[in-house]
Order: sequence, then C-alpha cells, then structure tokens
Amino acid sequence: MSGDSKLDKGEYADLLKPLARELSALARWVSETRQRVVLVFEGRDTAGKGGSIDMFARVLNPRQCRVVALPSPNERERTEWYFQRYIEHLPAAGEMVLFDRSWYNRAGVEKVMGYCTDDQVKAFLKATPEFERHLVDDGILLFKYWLCCDQKVQEMRFENRLHNPMKRWKLSPIDIKARTKYDEYTKAREKMLAATHTDFAPWTLVDFNDQQVGRLTLLRDFLDRVPDTDLPLPDIDWPELKGKPAKEHFKVIDPIPKFRLPKEIEKRDLIHNWD
Amino acid sequence: MSGDSKLDKGEYADLLKPLARELSALARWVSETRQRVVLVFEGRDTAGKGGSIDMFARVLNPRQCRVVALPSPNERERTEWYFQRYIEHLPAAGEMVLFDRSWYNRAGVEKVMGYCTDDQVKAFLKATPEFERHLVDDGILLFKYWLCCDQKVQEMRFENRLHNPMKRWKLSPIDIKARTKYDEYTKAREKMLAATHTDFAPWTLVDFNDQQVGRLTLLRDFLDRVPDTDLPLPDIDWPELKGKPAKEHFKVIDPIPKFRLPKEIEKRDLIHNWD
Amino acid sequence: MSGDSKLDKGEYADLLKPLARELSALARWVSETRQRVVLVFEGRDTAGKGGSIDMFARVLNPRQCRVVALPSPNERERTEWYFQRYIEHLPAAGEMVLFDRSWYNRAGVEKVMGYCTDDQVKAFLKATPEFERHLVDDGILLFKYWLCCDQKVQEMRFENRLHNPMKRWKLSPIDIKARTKYDEYTKAREKMLAATHTDFAPWTLVDFNDQQVGRLTLLRDFLDRVPDTDLPLPDIDWPELKGKPAKEHFKVIDPIPKFRLPKEIEKRDLIHNWD
Amino acid sequence: MSGDSKLDKGEYADLLKPLARELSALARWVSETRQRVVLVFEGRDTAGKGGSIDMFARVLNPRQCRVVALPSPNERERTEWYFQRYIEHLPAAGEMVLFDRSWYNRAGVEKVMGYCTDDQVKAFLKATPEFERHLVDDGILLFKYWLCCDQKVQEMRFENRLHNPMKRWKLSPIDIKARTKYDEYTKAREKMLAATHTDFAPWTLVDFNDQQVGRLTLLRDFLDRVPDTDLPLPDIDWPELKGKPAKEHFKVIDPIPKFRLPKEIEKRDLIHNWD
Repeated sequence: MSGDSKLDKGEYADLLKPLARELSALARWVSETRQRVVLVFEGRDTAGKGGSIDMFARVLNPRQCRVVALPSPNERERTEWYFQRYIEHLPAAGEMVLFDRSWYNRAGVEKVMGYCTDDQVKAFLKATPEFERHLVDDGILLFKYWLCCDQKVQEMRFENRLHNPMKRWKLSPIDIKARTKYDEYTKAREKMLAATHTDFAPWTLVDFNDQQVGRLTLLRDFLDRVPDTDLPLPDIDWPELKGKPAKEHFKVIDPIPKFRLPKEIEKRDLIHNWD
Repeated sequence: MSGDSKLDKGEYADLLKPLARELSALARWVSETRQRVVLVFEGRDTAGKGGSIDMFARVLNPRQCRVVALPSPNERERTEWYFQRYIEHLPAAGEMVLFDRSWYNRAGVEKVMGYCTDDQVKAFLKATPEFERHLVDDGILLFKYWLCCDQKVQEMRFENRLHNPMKRWKLSPIDIKARTKYDEYTKAREKMLAATHTDFAPWTLVDFNDQQVGRLTLLRDFLDRVPDTDLPLPDIDWPELKGKPAKEHFKVIDPIPKFRLPKEIEKRDLIHNWD
Repeated sequence: MSGDSKLDKGEYADLLKPLARELSALARWVSETRQRVVLVFEGRDTAGKGGSIDMFARVLNPRQCRVVALPSPNERERTEWYFQRYIEHLPAAGEMVLFDRSWYNRAGVEKVMGYCTDDQVKAFLKATPEFERHLVDDGILLFKYWLCCDQKVQEMRFENRLHNPMKRWKLSPIDIKARTKYDEYTKAREKMLAATHTDFAPWTLVDFNDQQVGRLTLLRDFLDRVPDTDLPLPDIDWPELKGKPAKEHFKVIDPIPKFRLPKEIEKRDLIHNWD
Repeated sequence: MSGDSKLDKGEYADLLKPLARELSALARWVSETRQRVVLVFEGRDTAGKGGSIDMFARVLNPRQCRVVALPSPNERERTEWYFQRYIEHLPAAGEMVLFDRSWYNRAGVEKVMGYCTDDQVKAFLKATPEFERHLVDDGILLFKYWLCCDQKVQEMRFENRLHNPMKRWKLSPIDIKARTKYDEYTKAREKMLAATHTDFAPWTLVDFNDQQVGRLTLLRDFLDRVPDTDLPLPDIDWPELKGKPAKEHFKVIDPIPKFRLPKEIEKRDLIHNWD
C-alpha cells in the first residue's frame, strides 16, 4: 500500500485511531437503538472499495456488520427482478450492511461493457430513486459513496496487480477490458449521478488518488452524518476469580511446536500487558 | 494487540509476509484446481480465533474465502437436524470456508453452559466423526484448529475487552459467565478430542498465549499440510494505453473536501510508486 | 365441499375441464416464452383462497408453479424491510408464483388485528403501488384477486372447520378472533382498494359465496386476460420399443401386500385403457 | 386417471375417505408432539409419485407439509457435497416433508443415464445408510417408498402423456431417453436396495400398476407404521355472533360477473348446508 499515499503507515494509523473509536461507538448505537444501515461502495476499478470496506470491517463485530459482494448473477437470477438478489441482503435491526458494488452495477459495468441493453439502463435509472426512497421511508439509513481516481493512478494500480502475485486475484478479465474505457465509465457515472443523486439518498464522491487519505475522508464524512451516537458503556459486574488461574494441560494431543522465531526474539520474555 | 506478544508489529509483519505470499499462491491453486477447503477455528474465548481468521481474510479474495460466524440458532433452527445450518455453508468448487466456531459448539459452549443435554452431547460426539468422514470422502480438505491459552492470559484479555470501548462488543454475556468455567472447558475439550481426533480429520492444537506467534504457527502448519500448490501466474497481455491518461472531471456533483491532514504532511507531494 | 355450491361435483368437473385445458396451454406458453406470472390471492377468511390455488396447482407442473404461503414473520424478519421476504419468492423466467396471502397482509389482517401501527398501514398503502409498478415495468404479469363472501356464509364455513376434524387445522386462533370483525375487514378492504387498485395492477373481486362457481369465475377471468397463449405441441419422435415389455421382478425385497379391496372389486380385471 | 384402475372415482373416494381422516389426525399429532417426518417418494417414471404426493397434500396444511421437488442442480450446486441441497429442506419440529425424488437420484436416474461416475454411485451407496442413520438417530421419522410398475403399463402412461396436451409437461426429455432403459433401472434399483434397505431406514415397495390401489396401499402402510397418533380435538369456545350477519357491499370496485352457468343450474337456489 506504500507508494500510494502521502502518509506512511504509522501516520495513517495515528490519524485513523480516533475515527475508529468513533465508528466503534456508532456501531454500538446502531445495535442498541436497533438502526439499520446500508453503505454502498461504488467507484473506479482500483479506487479502493475493498480497502475502505476493510477499514470498517476491522473495527466492527462481523455478526453485526455484513459485507455483501455478490458474484455475477447465475442464469436463473438473470431472469429475476433486477433488485431481487440485492434486497435479500438488506439489514435487519441493529445491522450494518456494506455493499461492495451494488445494484448500481447496471448503470456502471453492465452498461459500459454492454452486458445489458440501453432500455434496461433507462429502466434502472428510473426505478432506482423510487426503490431507494422505499428503503429510506422504511427507516433504513442509506449512504452511497463513489470513489474517484485519475486514469494514470488506475493504470499504476492495475500494473501493481499484474506484477504482484498476491494482488493478482484482483485483476479480473473484466478489469482488463475495462482499462481502456475510463471515459465511458465517466460518462456512465455522470448519467447515473444525474438520475440518482436525490435529497433522500444523495451520492458522496471521494477522491481516492491517495487511498489512505481517501479512506480517512470517507470515514470522517460518514461519522459526521450519523450524529449523536454517543451512548455510555454499560457497567458490567466483574468479580475477582477465586483460586489460582489454571494453566492449559493436555491429555489426548499436545499443541504443535511453535513457529521458529529468530533467536534474539525467542529469548525475550513474554509479558502480557496492555496498558 | 501490543502487550500480547514477544513480537512488535514490524517484526510480526516481516515474519508474516512470506507466509502470506504462500497463502496467496495456495488460494490460487484452490481456485484453479477447484478444491474445496474447510477451516474450523475453535478454542478458548479470547484465544484469538477472530484475529487468525482476519489473517487469512486480509490476503484472500472475499468472493473465494467466506467467513461463517453463525449467530445462535433461532427457534425453528433449534428443532432442525443439528448439522443442518452448518452444512448450508460448505464450500463449492474453488472456495475456502472459515468457520468462526462451528458444529463443535455442542461439545463446547453448549455443553459447559448447559444449553443441551448430556445425551445430545453424546449423540454429537458419536455422529461427528462419521459426518466429517463424509465430507473428507467427498474430497473436501478439512482442517480443525483449537486455540489454547492459559487462564491468566484469558483473564487479562477479558479485562482488556471490559475496559477498551472498541473491544467491548467482544465481551458477550456468555463470556462473562464462562470465565469461571475454565476447567470445565478443559474437560469438555479433552472429551471432544478423544471422540473426534481421527485419522481423516485430526485436530491441531496451537498455543495462543502469544497471539502473533500463535497465528504464525497456525498458518505455517496449514501451508505445510497443503503441499504442491505452486502454479505459475498466467501471462496476461498488457498493451500500452493509447493517448494521454484521463483525469477525473465532474459535472453533477464534486468530491467532498479532503480529510484535513497535519500541515507538514499536506505539503508533501503524492508520488505513486510501488517499487 | 358439497353443500357449498349450486353445482354437484360432476357438473363442476365438466365445466372445469375445458378451462383446465386452457390453463395447461397457458402454462406451456409461460414456459416457452419465458414469462413471469404472479397471482395474488387475498380475501375473506374461508372465502376459498386455498381451494382456488389448488385448482391451479392440480393442473400445473409443480416445478413451474410455486405456491408461496409464508408463515408469520420471525423476530428478525419483523425488523426487515416489509416487502423483503415476499420479494425473495418472485418468479424467474417461465415460472408462475401463487401467493396464498401476500404483502397485503399489512392492509388486512395486520391492520384489523392491530399487529401494526396506523402509520405502517399508511406507509404500506403509499409504497405498494410503486412497488407493484416496478414489477410490472420489469415485465412481470401481475394479477390480484380478492375473494368475497357474506358473513353468514363465512360463519357456516367456520363452523364446518370447527366440527370437521379434517378441517380443524384451517381454524387458526386468528380466525377465531377475526370472525367478529367482518365489518372492520370490509372497511380495511375498501381503503386498500382505494389506494392500490391501479391501471397497471388492478384488483379483481370475485364472489365466492358459491365456491365452485367462484373458482370457475376466477379462472375464466384469468384465462381471458392472458390471450394468445396457443402454441402447437412440439412433435416428439416416438419409436416402437423393441422386444417384449419387461415385468417388475424383485430380488432384495418384494412389494407389500395390496390394500384389501371389497371382494366384488377385487375380482375385476384391471384393463389399462385411457381412451 | 380412469382407465388406470379397477376402481372408479366414486369407489376410490369412498375407500380413501377414512384413510384421509386418519392422515389428518396423524398430522395433528405430528404438529402437537413436534415430530419431524420425512417421506421419500422414488420409483419408475409414471409410477405415480406425483399423484401419491397430491393425496397427502390435499389433506394437509401446506404450512405444515412441504413438497420438495428439486430441479437439476445448477453449476455451483454440482460441485457441493452431494447431500447438501437436500439437507437444506429437512423438516423442523411439527413438519412433514415429502420428497418428490430425493438424494436417491444418484443411484437411479443419474446412474442409468450416465450423469455421474461409477465411483460416485459407489460412494453414494456407502454414505447413504450412515447419512440416514444420522437423521433417524436425531429423531426424524423417515419413510422411503419405491413405486413399481410393469413396462407395459409405463409405456401406456408415457403415450398418454404424449397425446394428452394437459399431461405433456410430464414428459421430460429424460423420460424419452429413459423409456428404453427399463431393465437398467431395475438393476440399479436392486443394487440400491441391497445397499440402503436397513433396519433403521427400510424401503417399502408398492405395486402401482393400479395407481388408485397403489395410493391406498401406500397410505395404509404409512398410517399403520405411525401408531398412537390419536389426540382429542381441543375444545374451542364458540360464542354466537351478535347482530345480523353482514353482507358484502362494495364502494371502490364491484365483483366481476359470475361464470355463465347452464340455465337449469343457474336457476337453482344456493343452499349452504354441509350436513
């Protein structure tokens, strides 16, 4: 990730920490007041949707915060009502759902790559504001983020995926075709914004040329738009344990040998101490 | 996480990096040879199941690697065949499924906390080896890890959850009751191991008194047991883009202002450069 | 069922037969032209929703024609977007889905029995026409039937359920409370019709004081509104079988003894002959 | 259906009636004592699985009694553990599930038509008794019926499907290929019986050369094997309604005109009277 930000890792971690604390408090508020939250992550390929979602997921309880990254629809799903397979994943009380791409596929990749007809795009752009108003009227808190980056940056990130074996899985065949269609994506986005940027479900565009700064910007925006989420931590009675704490002991099988550490580390004492 | 390991963060990152690379290659092998992999994570509360799963999840494609952390069964599920709701999540070809707790709940928390009868535990311990043999006979690669730690360490980690607002969600009401039952958990584990540690689906115990070392130990073990996963990266044709790369430009709405950085960082140049 | 119709069973069967043939042809058209059909059955308790659905189901391929009769929502579903659990069952290409009660529960039983707030009913009546227009715009063929009967008839049918052990399961605790609320149901229906009887998704009311006549009326209406469904049966090559047809023979276990028939029937010859 | 039985429709109805009453009582017992019941229907093409299932379904509450008729597995399902997609449909407390074909596909149609390998059949026959023992040990009541008929009868029924437009949907492309493989099906059945006819989950073969008699035989057998299901009907308080029963009246829209009946029927009085 280095080479992609003004910030080094330590600086980023320091700036993120207080925001993560707020996010954690917000999640507790969502849970205790039984809110339902939907976050839609859209944007350029390589812009940083996955990394942004991870930023949330690392802080939150996975039982509360679900990430929905649907594969291409199967043959049967392709014939169903377009919104159907997304609706299935909407949150119940107390949940936050993070959509890694969403129903907006139809106005983006499907349109640009020719996977649907112009009429289908038109129908989608007409239906979507109503669909989203239904969710908002029902009390769902809906946030839609679109992550931007310049083509030069996108190319560099694509090449990183090409050459870095650990990133190679991110380079899908569609990415490869899509890299020459930067301008078409821009046009598609503008049409999509014109049709679906509404009072009740506005879009937020975030510059992700610098991914770490982009993530901080996005999270700060989200936190500012869900105010008054401060609830006191409930008190928990925590009596002393009686007796000497037990040690692990094994009869059936033993733990496997430890990972071999460099000698100078191995000989250190392990002192558990979180303060 | 500091205070819980002999290793500082940088050392851990350095030791993890080559393993992560191997894991990434292994995942590519799983995908291309259409394997199905199940990893079961069980162990003491606080031992480090979640962190271990994250170690995998951060490297892997979320569309390939699913984390299954089921909530308590609802009323209807409670009356179904015990294994039913877990079976639903077994992997299809090319997938890795990580169970954050699993069907072994019945032999652990359910037994110790009295949520099921002794007969149900007995029936479970009898059925499980056959159930798992079915999966293994069907070609599923099944790995079962049990994460150990001493009670003193567990207590310190519980207290960290108690006092750290960001960790508080990890402190479930069951945890609080369970902390006095360390020995009962040990007994339950030994019975469970005696009944379900089989040739075709053995358990692996890993010492997690030092969580970072525990994670390295677990991952090294896993990598060593899935050998010959080295496949060459496929060649991808990557022609130069024609013309000057485009820049983002916006007509409907603009990106929001960037997160305010400290001045000395703000004035740095952003140079994208991954090498 | 006798005692509930001007028609005796034979007469009903004779009148139904040509309609059933048309329905069968219509289903073939749905399948071959990949239509999606939704039939909503609403109406008075005891009016005859179940019997009407059976009339369809007996003719149709159960793999093509699904009956959706959802139980009360569980605790989690109760907090989800109201339409969510119904949307899950919408048809894919070539399918007909018959809703035995539907999303209209909110404007009927839930309203009358006080299971939801007035605001929820209002929100429902506002959202539903848009929701249904989305389905219709997407190409789904949507039919909404409301089955009427007088209170006197309803009472007689309730009493039949009370006294007839085979019908007792139809008498739900809600039925029992609902029988005194005939007028409230009328009022609720009128409000519902005023809000949701639209050009694109009109309601059809059918008199079910005579259930057999009601079913014929409903089916005739449906058939008339889906015109031009006549497709020729495809030709199938059907060569003679070679050799003498085989008889069943058993080595491991034998069929169980036949049901004991009255003697005069038993001695009849079984002559298979469909002409 | 006539032409396929010694019994005429009236005789069949008379013989069925007392059995249907018993079935209805049994279902009440299943519900109140929270049993789980699985009925597997296998057998020759055309033998009468669908009609037998209908015999049950017409008596039972569709919310209690689910019919599971799975389509061919999709591409993803084909790579999952073979039993997985069936297990999903196993009953919860109080439910009866009727499988119209089942996991035994692998030992029947898949084997005979070459849709799976010999090794897969072998693995299936080895795994199935254990799988079923798990269900039975868990308390599920499991009944397995195999419906027999001679090839001559099968041919006549196929031809009926060929020539009768309303039955044409029952004639699948696989049927057409399968009709010449009567003997292979016999062989496959015998192997299947030899491997899976167990003490805890025995097969019951029923002669369906006469379909109506076959259905009576099957149902009688089932009723006899689930004894002591007699529970008294609960008393329900049933006060008189106050006031004159209301009649339907309509403000928004009126019911559609009634189906046109033959004149001599039309002029009859409708007298509701179930006694």
